[in-house]
Amino acid sequence: MSSRPKVVIVGGGFGGLQAATHLKSADVDITLVDRRNFHLFQPLTYQVATGALSPGEVAYPLRAIFKRRRNVEVLMAEVNGFELDSRQVLLESEPPLPYDTLIVGGGSSYSYFGHDDWRQLAPEIKSLESALAMRGRILTAFEHAETEQDADARRALLTFVIVGAGPTGVEMAGQIAELARDTVASDFRKIDPREARVLLVETADRVLTAFPPSLSRRAARSLQRIGVTPLLQHTVVGIDGESVTVSAQDGDSETIPARTVIWAAGVNASPLARQLGELTGAEVDRAGRLTVEPDLTLPGHPEVLALGDMVRVRRENGEVETLPGVAPVAMQQGRYAAKLVRARLDNKTIGPFHYRDKGNLATIGRASAVADLHFLRLSGFLAWITWLTVHLWYLVGFQNRMLVFIRWSISFFTRGRGARLITAQRDA
Amino acid sequence: MSSRPKVVIVGGGFGGLQAATHLKSADVDITLVDRRNFHLFQPLTYQVATGALSPGEVAYPLRAIFKRRRNVEVLMAEVNGFELDSRQVLLESEPPLPYDTLIVGGGSSYSYFGHDDWRQLAPEIKSLESALAMRGRILTAFEHAETEQDADARRALLTFVIVGAGPTGVEMAGQIAELARDTVASDFRKIDPREARVLLVETADRVLTAFPPSLSRRAARSLQRIGVTPLLQHTVVGIDGESVTVSAQDGDSETIPARTVIWAAGVNASPLARQLGELTGAEVDRAGRLTVEPDLTLPGHPEVLALGDMVRVRRENGEVETLPGVAPVAMQQGRYAAKLVRARLDNKTIGPFHYRDKGNLATIGRASAVADLHFLRLSGFLAWITWLTVHLWYLVGFQNRMLVFIRWSISFFTRGRGARLITAQRDA
Repeated sequence: MSSRPKVVIVGGGFGGLQAATHLKSADVDITLVDRRNFHLFQPLTYQVATGALSPGEVAYPLRAIFKRRRNVEVLMAEVNGFELDSRQVLLESEPPLPYDTLIVGGGSSYSYFGHDDWRQLAPEIKSLESALAMRGRILTAFEHAETEQDADARRALLTFVIVGAGPTGVEMAGQIAELARDTVASDFRKIDPREARVLLVETADRVLTAFPPSLSRRAARSLQRIGVTPLLQHTVVGIDGESVTVSAQDGDSETIPARTVIWAAGVNASPLARQLGELTGAEVDRAGRLTVEPDLTLPGHPEVLALGDMVRVRRENGEVETLPGVAPVAMQQGRYAAKLVRARLDNKTIGPFHYRDKGNLATIGRASAVADLHFLRLSGFLAWITWLTVHLWYLVGFQNRMLVFIRWSISFFTRGRGARLITAQRDA
Repeated sequence: MSSRPKVVIVGGGFGGLQAATHLKSADVDITLVDRRNFHLFQPLTYQVATGALSPGEVAYPLRAIFKRRRNVEVLMAEVNGFELDSRQVLLESEPPLPYDTLIVGGGSSYSYFGHDDWRQLAPEIKSLESALAMRGRILTAFEHAETEQDADARRALLTFVIVGAGPTGVEMAGQIAELARDTVASDFRKIDPREARVLLVETADRVLTAFPPSLSRRAARSLQRIGVTPLLQHTVVGIDGESVTVSAQDGDSETIPARTVIWAAGVNASPLARQLGELTGAEVDRAGRLTVEPDLTLPGHPEVLALGDMVRVRRENGEVETLPGVAPVAMQQGRYAAKLVRARLDNKTIGPFHYRDKGNLATIGRASAVADLHFLRLSGFLAWITWLTVHLWYLVGFQNRMLVFIRWSISFFTRGRGARLITAQRDA
């Protein structure tokens, strides 16, 4: 065992990965703990859910990433909690893991606003498994519609409701609409998949609220053009497996028969955030996000950092900033964490974390996207090319980049989706 | 509804697919029934089990294959049985399906020789789901070995037993050995994956009994070179999840602690074979295979054909021939079935089915294979190139061919396996 400082990083998402990568040449021993054996490129997971990509194309083994980095050890384990005084990470089935510096990027899941019974009826697509299960559900809905004799039941099978019009909701709605109108349009003999209805329910008065209103409007128009119906200023008040009940702002409610509902709303920070809050007295907001100091550390525990979409950051003026839960924020925080650790090794100090917002991207469908680069607002084909380039660039692993590039090229020209396999249990 | 003759094909494997494809321009309406929505390229499924390929690369949606073939309807449904007198296929949840000609290619599964309790402990890797579950088991064994403190337990975690040295067993053993010795060799910090033991248990006195003895010997030598230990003339007599007990021909038995056991032995024809046997009086052998007439029809039912590894074929001299359960047999039988249906439409007759054995191929590891082309026996690199070419050629879908080619090229040069993701439940 070496006597070098031990850095434990919890979570192999965007933040944890950047922290580990940027501690490359530092004189520390790093242990990266994740319950999964792979890094998931979450911004593209929704494409697995519609059969555009395969799991192996959006995920990459953590051990492969750090193969040649002898100061990084990968540990596949479930983190149960922390003992901050003795500086240990508590694991579910392994002995406690001691650290000198701890970096926690536990991520978040979707919040069902207290309706946890909806989780089964309207699954999210954040993990690889849930995306695969959703792929099975969507494709099976078409299969069942093909053999269904009753017209109303068929209509319910061909109605897809997406809850939440953030980037994931918008991208998912666009993909399902294209799946129905292009990919499987000639696949069936008894139904016309183009009759599928795709409804995008959003409480706000526009889609993509993180974007400027002008781009929201363009995105909404693009969605409508490919067959998505945005239901703005509507809130889901009921889901029962057969239908979805939405309530408009004027109080009117409507029950829509729909067999497939996809959840893409709300944020629920990792339970590790609440635990760290209880241990340190740091503030935790309603979404379970922990408030960290301007340098991402915890109050009274400069050796513990937290980052990504499980935290909010206190500014030096005392204000608490809620940054968007996107990959660039987590990546910049991961790099900052690495920089802080290295500075401390050199007995130096660095300034507080600042997020450099380079812009926002969301794709709506084939050859269509919106891009808010601040100095430039793009929509349509050019925005889509920007989106493609950025996503290919940040995909981990040369192999994944090649494979995704080929899949996308083929899909673009053939409108096909080779990976539309139903592999989960049919009623999963 | 058209009044054209209705051909129902049960099973979207190699036989069913060829039958449907070669009835392309025939004046018939075809319904292809399969419980899955995809055609699986079974000869490569084992590569999914070791993370060399992704599910979407060895499977292709049936509807996509027949998209532009308006006389082919694909039906995703479970076949429960047949009513031969009224000419109907009985489905689990849909109304019966009437036919004029029925072609059944139900395939086979592995036989556990009466030990059905072994199925959970020593899973097979024939389906996409079981291959994915096995991938999870193999990779998790390495993960657990990395954190295991006890040396004996660690050794059991790093011992892999493959039962059956046919092509699948040999290929699987070779892949696991390479996974341990090349792919993940530098991935771990506490264990040396190269210490993994890979045992290949076979009752016969040589591996690959379908090949000439000289090639079996070369295959065994290649296996040993990459770290596989063939246990010939040994039979598995016990599996309990912790260990495997094998018995030598002299009666000596040995218990080997091993946490991962993979089953690749025996044949169990689809239960549809036995059903058709009972309905027609056709002979059914111990492996559940149905004996069909020289033209693949059932005795007394010239309108019903059966093919693939669920049948044996009666020759015109009365002898019953057991053809190998490989893709080329099923494909030739599928083409023959289509030819017979077309001949009948023209009121013509054709001769009996004859299998043209073009040879046998099995790969042993990176750049190594054996090929018995009858006029030529190859081993090593040339055999491997032959193997590559044949498998890429027969993969369905241009996209799959491209993707698999790229995966293999990258794997060849980097010895990596990008798809080694643990996505199944950990203890699945």
